Amino acid sequence: MKILIDERGKKYIPPSKGDFQTDLGIIKKEKIERSLPGDELKTHLGKKFKVIEANVNDFIELMERRSSIILPKDIGIVISYTGLGSGQKVLDAGTGTGSVALTLANIVGDTGKVYTYEIREDFAKLAKKNIKDFGMKNIILKNKDIKKGIKEKNLDLIFFDLPRSWEIIEDAKNALKDGGWLVFYNPYIEPVKIIHKKAKECKFKEIKTIEVITREIEIKKKGTRPRTRMIGHTGYLTFTRKI
Amino acid sequence: MKILIDERGKKYIPPSKGDFQTDLGIIKKEKIERSLPGDELKTHLGKKFKVIEANVNDFIELMERRSSIILPKDIGIVISYTGLGSGQKVLDAGTGTGSVALTLANIVGDTGKVYTYEIREDFAKLAKKNIKDFGMKNIILKNKDIKKGIKEKNLDLIFFDLPRSWEIIEDAKNALKDGGWLVFYNPYIEPVKIIHKKAKECKFKEIKTIEVITREIEIKKKGTRPRTRMIGHTGYLTFTRKI
Amino acid sequence: MKILIDERGKKYIPPSKGDFQTDLGIIKKEKIERSLPGDELKTHLGKKFKVIEANVNDFIELMERRSSIILPKDIGIVISYTGLGSGQKVLDAGTGTGSVALTLANIVGDTGKVYTYEIREDFAKLAKKNIKDFGMKNIILKNKDIKKGIKEKNLDLIFFDLPRSWEIIEDAKNALKDGGWLVFYNPYIEPVKIIHKKAKECKFKEIKTIEVITREIEIKKKGTRPRTRMIGHTGYLTFTRKI
Amino acid sequence: MKILIDERGKKYIPPSKGDFQTDLGIIKKEKIERSLPGDELKTHLGKKFKVIEANVNDFIELMERRSSIILPKDIGIVISYTGLGSGQKVLDAGTGTGSVALTLANIVGDTGKVYTYEIREDFAKLAKKNIKDFGMKNIILKNKDIKKGIKEKNLDLIFFDLPRSWEIIEDAKNALKDGGWLVFYNPYIEPVKIIHKKAKECKFKEIKTIEVITREIEIKKKGTRPRTRMIGHTGYLTFTRKI
Repeated sequence: MKILIDERGKKYIPPSKGDFQTDLGIIKKEKIERSLPGDELKTHLGKKFKVIEANVNDFIELMERRSSIILPKDIGIVISYTGLGSGQKVLDAGTGTGSVALTLANIVGDTGKVYTYEIREDFAKLAKKNIKDFGMKNIILKNKDIKKGIKEKNLDLIFFDLPRSWEIIEDAKNALKDGGWLVFYNPYIEPVKIIHKKAKECKFKEIKTIEVITREIEIKKKGTRPRTRMIGHTGYLTFTRKI
Repeated sequence: MKILIDERGKKYIPPSKGDFQTDLGIIKKEKIERSLPGDELKTHLGKKFKVIEANVNDFIELMERRSSIILPKDIGIVISYTGLGSGQKVLDAGTGTGSVALTLANIVGDTGKVYTYEIREDFAKLAKKNIKDFGMKNIILKNKDIKKGIKEKNLDLIFFDLPRSWEIIEDAKNALKDGGWLVFYNPYIEPVKIIHKKAKECKFKEIKTIEVITREIEIKKKGTRPRTRMIGHTGYLTFTRKI
Repeated sequence: MKILIDERGKKYIPPSKGDFQTDLGIIKKEKIERSLPGDELKTHLGKKFKVIEANVNDFIELMERRSSIILPKDIGIVISYTGLGSGQKVLDAGTGTGSVALTLANIVGDTGKVYTYEIREDFAKLAKKNIKDFGMKNIILKNKDIKKGIKEKNLDLIFFDLPRSWEIIEDAKNALKDGGWLVFYNPYIEPVKIIHKKAKECKFKEIKTIEVITREIEIKKKGTRPRTRMIGHTGYLTFTRKI
Repeated sequence: MKILIDERGKKYIPPSKGDFQTDLGIIKKEKIERSLPGDELKTHLGKKFKVIEANVNDFIELMERRSSIILPKDIGIVISYTGLGSGQKVLDAGTGTGSVALTLANIVGDTGKVYTYEIREDFAKLAKKNIKDFGMKNIILKNKDIKKGIKEKNLDLIFFDLPRSWEIIEDAKNALKDGGWLVFYNPYIEPVKIIHKKAKECKFKEIKTIEVITREIEIKKKGTRPRTRMIGHTGYLTFTRKI
């Protein structure tokens, strides 16, 4: 998917129909279609736009989102702690606007598969559109209640961002391959305690809960320091492994 | 690659020659060879070992390492911030014992490629062995000084864990595709300041330095709290993008 | 100093002249004057106000401030790390609006003394008013450039929140008693490096730089978690001791 | 109280009887008695020791401790958040080895008072010795169970480091003056939740729980960075105010 970037760094998805119009001027549809990543296009006002092939983060940044999404800092740790890789089969619930499914799908690739469950019809519809727009073909979106049962088997990773997710912890275990990971995302600590208890009962191993904090460093002429404002907390990540 | 896990959770790579011998008893070579992931094997003393297919982290944990490695918390953020995915072409220098190359190779998969440069012969040799042992086929290891020049083109990601890495920032830019990322890892802040300066001179965009901190939460009968000891700092990650 | 607190927790300094007037109604001046801490007063509209004896923080919160102040989290660590106590003699520069001087003066008490230097006349004037309003009698405010020299001797603590404060590190050392502390506050890291160098040259001991981070925990019906927003950085505190 | 510091920075309390003997040589008792803070004494082997007047932290560092103590980072925030100052009356329970009582007593001074309760006889005995050794005269140590009742009135601050401390929250409120603070220290989060509930029922105001994290910055020739190891968590501080 091609996107355009103006000189201030703002990104745009060109419209599927008609010319590209912004306050910096107009670029003809044909001009965009003929362009290649790396090209620089000019509007009729002479303003420059760079063409790049969107990566999955560019798209998630630009796509329609009606709810808050799990931040890259959190999903990144899920990926690296579980050894996620190309060709793996994974499951994610609830889908929300699809950002986690897209990120996972980008990694498991064509030889892998992402199953994603969403109970709400409106979210499922939006996620479906987002997945289609980005052109991901390895995602199976299911607009159903995952608590009714998981059909998939031999999964490498299951990621739950769900209320009362521990209710299907046994189902999840059955759906995992040996050595596979079940990871829970919870904004509050109380559910984490229940998950630990249930995970031990289900004989999950390598149970561990972490919080990921990122600090941005400001490097300016005035001097160097961590930014004065930061995100204090998003959620707890609880890792459990079927061994 | 099959590994064995004892009841305390300790992992073992079975020897390439001869029977598997531990203080918990012996398991015959043939028994291990016939086993499938998920099987449980018993030693002659009746102790149980679980067989699992090692994922990349299991292997990195068990492989020979003669230097400290970049932690999953840091490499995870590199992956998620840059949108790394299946099929991408990436470069990493210096290789060290190969842990970053293995992690990246696991993600880019067979349709992708990892080029990894290591100047020291002893490290290159060890990394080569580690890569071969895990069976990764998409890594090109070069035992040469990356400062002499980068031949690769059209890369999605370059990751530098090198002294004075800014000296080849222009080379790195030429090796990247449009939209590609150059990421620097630095334990100290001083090089980060030089990198910001050089990156601006080279017209890199989306320049940002962050620190990743993970806090483990202890969930015990006595109560819940963050662990009393934690890792305070590993390194700064500086992201720069060719746009 | 008496202050009033309404039912929402908002605090007010009653005016020195005339009745107390808010959107919650009016309380007569005489009524306030006759009141004792702990009393509850009603406005003519029937709204309740609690009378309390302001502590130093209440006053700092309410007093006029034209610049940002050093946060309690930072000044608290200065106090506890240096063993500040009743009867000590301390120095602080620059005064700013007087908040640090007030906090220190509250601790050293009548048998102690706070010398505070401020180069800017407008700040010195404002600080003087604030000190007088709160009724602190153990503060000597000097509207002069501390870089011209420090007359005080035998001090227990010197606290510098100044640009290029290392320029008077020798002067500061001479002004300290043996065992006394010189503490520096710096938003950026670069001056901290110079201070370490100079402090070693001046044979200061127990040199240490720290950052203080406070995380507020939200305890609500929905659940418990660290707040989603937090202050990421204010300044570095560098401790050095004359031994 | 005079202490001695050797050239490596190690501190010593000279013995109450007999000469001062270390591996660096001997200093005669009389020589130490005649010395003044700032003097440098030599052992018979020619090694130098500096004499300084111990501040409260030096003493706490050197005194006998049989249990872990509350760190300066935490007690510092209690002091600054509550506006503790000279002349105030405060209460602390349990005493433990007396470190909190000593720190508070150092601040409230001769015109203030610290009441400290300890249920265990062995701790009370040790704390008594420590308080006497440092020469603090404004501490009333009670070897009794604070849960049986608090006699003191009109206190500025109560600090609880006790199991199930919420059981005496009403007693504590009665012991506080209007505007006074009750602060709780808890290693685990579960009691904090009960305290919030009880504090609201008792109509405490300005209820707030924080965690204090300090990061030390390493400034070396090799470069500048936060230390690689840090203390991850000690306890939660819960502030509640009687208004």
